[in-house]
Amino acid sequence: MTSADESSAQQPYELIYWPSIQGRGEFVRLVLEEGGIPYEDVARQPEEEGGGMNAIQEILGDIGQTPGFAVPMLRAGDLVISQTANICLFLATRHGLVPDDEASRWHANQLQLTVMDFVTEAHDTHHPISVADYYEDQKEAAKRRAKAFIELRMPKFLGYFERAIDAGARAGWLVGEQRSYVDLSLFQVVRGLEYAFPNATARCLEEAPNVAALADRVEARPNVAAYLNSERRIPFNEDGIFRHYSELDP
Amino acid sequence: MTSADESSAQQPYELIYWPSIQGRGEFVRLVLEEGGIPYEDVARQPEEEGGGMNAIQEILGDIGQTPGFAVPMLRAGDLVISQTANICLFLATRHGLVPDDEASRWHANQLQLTVMDFVTEAHDTHHPISVADYYEDQKEAAKRRAKAFIELRMPKFLGYFERAIDAGARAGWLVGEQRSYVDLSLFQVVRGLEYAFPNATARCLEEAPNVAALADRVEARPNVAAYLNSERRIPFNEDGIFRHYSELDP
Repeated sequence: MTSADESSAQQPYELIYWPSIQGRGEFVRLVLEEGGIPYEDVARQPEEEGGGMNAIQEILGDIGQTPGFAVPMLRAGDLVISQTANICLFLATRHGLVPDDEASRWHANQLQLTVMDFVTEAHDTHHPISVADYYEDQKEAAKRRAKAFIELRMPKFLGYFERAIDAGARAGWLVGEQRSYVDLSLFQVVRGLEYAFPNATARCLEEAPNVAALADRVEARPNVAAYLNSERRIPFNEDGIFRHYSELDP
Repeated sequence: MTSADESSAQQPYELIYWPSIQGRGEFVRLVLEEGGIPYEDVARQPEEEGGGMNAIQEILGDIGQTPGFAVPMLRAGDLVISQTANICLFLATRHGLVPDDEASRWHANQLQLTVMDFVTEAHDTHHPISVADYYEDQKEAAKRRAKAFIELRMPKFLGYFERAIDAGARAGWLVGEQRSYVDLSLFQVVRGLEYAFPNATARCLEEAPNVAALADRVEARPNVAAYLNSERRIPFNEDGIFRHYSELDP
């Protein structure tokens, strides 16, 4: 007989996320890929095999016992969990992508939540008024928000992570002496910012060499490199969080 | 001899947060108060006793091993942790404000992170362009953002929590059969929205009776009620997250 716990460990995880953008799902994908953890990217499967947008509508409509507000969601056996930072911590804890001790986990979660705040602010540069309206309908506000983001927020966040790398074990990672899931997320943000705001990001990273080096080190890891070179990696595009509009990056 | 762990359990927690607003610190204060957990609200002490704004500058400047991006921060013996949802989960786990089983904790964290997203969106109604600028300098954008928040986002978030209460143990709480820290946070958001957007919130809560009832039940809990009637509870005001500007709540 297989216990519920063993059976949930044996089933591949199911990631439910929009099939055409990196978005917040990408933070989860990177943990799964770096960890060599089997998963199914459900909505990227054909509709006739249960994939596509239907899969997303279905899980968001199925309130179950733990309804999610938004994707990404992860099905892990009987567990269905949402919120990006929560899913990442769940996977990292199970699969050795965060140190074992309690203090490191609180510290990792603190950093991850700060990464997610940074992501929200990066997103809101192109949607400062409403996520229900087009960028074109909020372009003037976007220019002003992007200016504040580039001049004040990006340096503040990157400066913080620069210090956090310095303050730790001085091994070049954010938590402890090895790469953790938080490093993968910071890598993703750096590449996203380079895509969206190439000019401003280049300037900022000159002042944040630890962060730039960390991103390069993550990118060179064999599992990450293989993933980035595969078709599984969706290119950055103007439907995602990090969008390149040249008028926002003078 | 006292072990490091015992000694950290005996020292009162130190909460470091802006002394004149509820802000994000209030979510932590509510956990401490409901739990009957001794704490010192450091920056609300006199400057000559190590309090005041100096205490905040000091902890944000002291990078230590786990620097924080922003307050609230919590000192718990040797641990210094930040990020509101992280601090709340830490305290709730230690002090019985969340069920013991792993599944409930992932679910609670998922809900808490959604509360925090809601808080960020409520905040950004009055600061859609830049936190470094005055409200008056972004008032036109604020009107548009507040309209989208009231018409689309508030009903979506409150509708989600309404379903989450329904989907659970049907005891009227968000997680399990007892109040957890997440309920305290949802209470705080409801009261904040009622302060900031009395008209829109009244309309929304008609469609979310579970949420309204939960907020009332939290407010009636003896420790919470005593706190709310004490001088420790800072009144809502126009420096915090939830600000009442009548032009944003037609």
